[in-house]
Amino acid sequence: NAPFVLIAGPCQIESREHALKIAAFLSETAKAAGVPFVFKASYDKANRTSLKGTRGVGIEAGLSILAEVRDRLGCPVLTDVHDIEQTRRAGEVVDILQIPAFLCRQTDLLLAAGETGKAVNIKKGQFLAPWDMQNVADKVASTGNDRVLLTDRGTSFGYGALITDFRGLPTMAETGYPVVFDATHSVQEPGGRGSSSGGKRVFAPALARAAVAVGCAAVFVEAHDDPDNAPSDGPNMLPLPWIAPLLSDLKALDAVAKGRTLTEAY
Amino acid sequence: NAPFVLIAGPCQIESREHALKIAAFLSETAKAAGVPFVFKASYDKANRTSLKGTRGVGIEAGLSILAEVRDRLGCPVLTDVHDIEQTRRAGEVVDILQIPAFLCRQTDLLLAAGETGKAVNIKKGQFLAPWDMQNVADKVASTGNDRVLLTDRGTSFGYGALITDFRGLPTMAETGYPVVFDATHSVQEPGGRGSSSGGKRVFAPALARAAVAVGCAAVFVEAHDDPDNAPSDGPNMLPLPWIAPLLSDLKALDAVAKGRTLTEAY
Amino acid sequence: NAPFVLIAGPCQIESREHALKIAAFLSETAKAAGVPFVFKASYDKANRTSLKGTRGVGIEAGLSILAEVRDRLGCPVLTDVHDIEQTRRAGEVVDILQIPAFLCRQTDLLLAAGETGKAVNIKKGQFLAPWDMQNVADKVASTGNDRVLLTDRGTSFGYGALITDFRGLPTMAETGYPVVFDATHSVQEPGGRGSSSGGKRVFAPALARAAVAVGCAAVFVEAHDDPDNAPSDGPNMLPLPWIAPLLSDLKALDAVAKGRTLTEAY
Amino acid sequence: NAPFVLIAGPCQIESREHALKIAAFLSETAKAAGVPFVFKASYDKANRTSLKGTRGVGIEAGLSILAEVRDRLGCPVLTDVHDIEQTRRAGEVVDILQIPAFLCRQTDLLLAAGETGKAVNIKKGQFLAPWDMQNVADKVASTGNDRVLLTDRGTSFGYGALITDFRGLPTMAETGYPVVFDATHSVQEPGGRGSSSGGKRVFAPALARAAVAVGCAAVFVEAHDDPDNAPSDGPNMLPLPWIAPLLSDLKALDAVAKGRTLTEAY
Repeated sequence: NAPFVLIAGPCQIESREHALKIAAFLSETAKAAGVPFVFKASYDKANRTSLKGTRGVGIEAGLSILAEVRDRLGCPVLTDVHDIEQTRRAGEVVDILQIPAFLCRQTDLLLAAGETGKAVNIKKGQFLAPWDMQNVADKVASTGNDRVLLTDRGTSFGYGALITDFRGLPTMAETGYPVVFDATHSVQEPGGRGSSSGGKRVFAPALARAAVAVGCAAVFVEAHDDPDNAPSDGPNMLPLPWIAPLLSDLKALDAVAKGRTLTEAY
Repeated sequence: NAPFVLIAGPCQIESREHALKIAAFLSETAKAAGVPFVFKASYDKANRTSLKGTRGVGIEAGLSILAEVRDRLGCPVLTDVHDIEQTRRAGEVVDILQIPAFLCRQTDLLLAAGETGKAVNIKKGQFLAPWDMQNVADKVASTGNDRVLLTDRGTSFGYGALITDFRGLPTMAETGYPVVFDATHSVQEPGGRGSSSGGKRVFAPALARAAVAVGCAAVFVEAHDDPDNAPSDGPNMLPLPWIAPLLSDLKALDAVAKGRTLTEAY
Repeated sequence: NAPFVLIAGPCQIESREHALKIAAFLSETAKAAGVPFVFKASYDKANRTSLKGTRGVGIEAGLSILAEVRDRLGCPVLTDVHDIEQTRRAGEVVDILQIPAFLCRQTDLLLAAGETGKAVNIKKGQFLAPWDMQNVADKVASTGNDRVLLTDRGTSFGYGALITDFRGLPTMAETGYPVVFDATHSVQEPGGRGSSSGGKRVFAPALARAAVAVGCAAVFVEAHDDPDNAPSDGPNMLPLPWIAPLLSDLKALDAVAKGRTLTEAY
Repeated sequence: NAPFVLIAGPCQIESREHALKIAAFLSETAKAAGVPFVFKASYDKANRTSLKGTRGVGIEAGLSILAEVRDRLGCPVLTDVHDIEQTRRAGEVVDILQIPAFLCRQTDLLLAAGETGKAVNIKKGQFLAPWDMQNVADKVASTGNDRVLLTDRGTSFGYGALITDFRGLPTMAETGYPVVFDATHSVQEPGGRGSSSGGKRVFAPALARAAVAVGCAAVFVEAHDDPDNAPSDGPNMLPLPWIAPLLSDLKALDAVAKGRTLTEAY
């Protein structure tokens, strides 16, 4: 029942300067709000809707930039991995390895992530129920590494749409692992722009508030200084000025929520 | 942005004594929490899963008991109506007429409810999107009665399951009408017990907390002194001892949520 | 395992002349194809998306026109009913009473329909699983009238969309009642045009072919001489020239499908 | 509009003897029915629900057995691949490389498959709309290899369930690539047995009949001599005696369906 953590950053590492700028802003804003902060960014967008989508700076440059963010700002860093070799390389640099939702059932990837000894944040596949994540987490834990986090980033709901089931947070928490709510991917509209995903960022604060009121260990948001022109996930990333008021509200909601364990006190 | 209201009561009026007892408990508990209270109960369960389900005391006895609850406790009373004649009769007694979710597209019923001049609480059909409720509300408003409330009680999600989309609360609020969140029907599992619906009441407080944190005008819950033996909706009704701690948490969350309008301040 | 029946007509009775013209066309086309024909049309569209939608000629004129269609063409006629009084009146005129999908759980309506002694075609609610229809059919059968038909017209699939689960046809057939597939409402897009439903008629023949290949007792389609300008359900109604080739294909598929009972012969 | 092809085999290669036995049976049965046959089996089940699920014989043994099946029976062989190195190795042996549904958005895997020059069968992710597959196919085609097949194996429908949208077959056919219907995975119930998926094989013939009546290039089924004791996908695999009558019916339905192009002739 520790206070919630903020996991945030731009969708992808666009450049060294850009990553450092966004990370510094988020780190300071989180510090001012009294919220622990983890920086997140991707070095490769390996599953873009269309081949034409920008993929990123690549693993070598990306890991180097993530290391610099951590060294400069003193915050843990998180990135996502897509195959076993990437997992090993990223596992030497970052603090938290993230398994993308589409890949959350790939046994070898989960085992490789577990074997690094680093914390592993597994995103729930859009095609899975919350309770299906026990088997998924068990794959990582079978390596002797129980530093697992489980993230909800929405569930398929008809075509081109996701929905968040907030019963999923306490359900996944029954595994004993910390549960993260990803507020910006949860408002994505997959494939909604034809050759890229759409989304409605206006709903992300509402869903983050709901998640914290239900009870979660961390909130994940992607944020950007110019989301409408970002190379990926623009429609759902948050503008930087939203972060401070959002953290302020989430802190207050979290204090209420952490006062009563959901399944015991009613 | 007034503080939230509690709409609560047993699923059905089982007897005069039972209704008065539950109403008195809820009224006192809400008063102690400083939460305005509306008593809800049904005189007829007109759409039970199976013909064998208990339907209730009927409209004549039911309206008389509702009037007595209001007179004794001084709280507004709400009941649901299923045809035009019932609507006219109930409209002479209760403060709020409720349109059941399955019936929310029946134009003549909506018009009849509007014409009573009473407040009309329309439950969003499980088969409708939040934005579809503008056309539904317009039918009532066409009678010159704009005392409309819109309630979310879950949306169809595969078979035998409902899901709550918390983006729906601000979406329905764009109509300008107060939005209610029904926390106990939202955790129903339609048809889940073969000849009656199932449900998981354990999730209702979580969803109520989420709704209040997002922002809503009222929370609707069904409550019972012995839910496991209630004639209808037992699996999702709340036991009475859950109400006081739930209201306490919701009050605190509401104070945070009402401090910042969702769509303007981020 | 009798050959399939065609239930068809315009969504609503627009006028005596229009109904007779469409009925005559469909009757002749069905006769030429060797397919038994039931004429369907509504006298009142009681649940339009918006109050502005055209509702129809009303029950008195409507029943008179339906009687004339039957007398002139010698075909059974079907219409839908929305309350108990309509059910009694329509029950004196038409051959098959239809319970709309939104109303399929209204116990009193089902009982009233059963009590007329006429055949009762119940549309599966978009919010129900196929196996939920056993309880629904039992309500009608409790009146001693077992002349029940069960129709699939699609299931809610996210917002503004329906999907057809073809496992539902054999599942509903396990009740022992004939199963009808409604090919044109199944391709509706509820609320898709803001103040009316959208739809994609181009997919209706595909779904009708699928249904007949799986095995069903009847195919229901709405058809119109100018669907793009029809007062309701235009986007999904079929133009008249599609009917003859569709029946020809369905006949051929039906002959194959009826040759092997689904659950026994594999 | 060529007659349909059968793609069939056991879910996994259990042993050389078992694969050869099943392949021989299916090859003969297809030949007797006059249906072209492709043998399918997996050397590795890389995304089992639970870590405890049997994974298979591995790529080296698996490719050798697939080569032997092709050499002995003269039929093309298909297997699924999970990373770039597997793709290159399998691409030297099999005729059709298959991209699993969960992996259908992994750009590098699609490019690697395309670069082998072999035919690439891409399964539509359970989380994608049919129209999303154009972008997916374009990734393969960007390598200069347009020998792409698109397979429907069901779409997420609530939790633990899949549904088949038969509008998806003509929608995917608009890409110009042949469309395959996977009748046995479409009746899976993901995670339905806790540590493995459930399913209802009884519905697979119904869905296969529907797909052929709508129109498709190939039908994919997994079949086994003892499905109830198979190491994977037992609940949805077909027993061998179902294959001959199913092919007989599908042949007759296909002859009707191929007689009229869906979107042109109605």
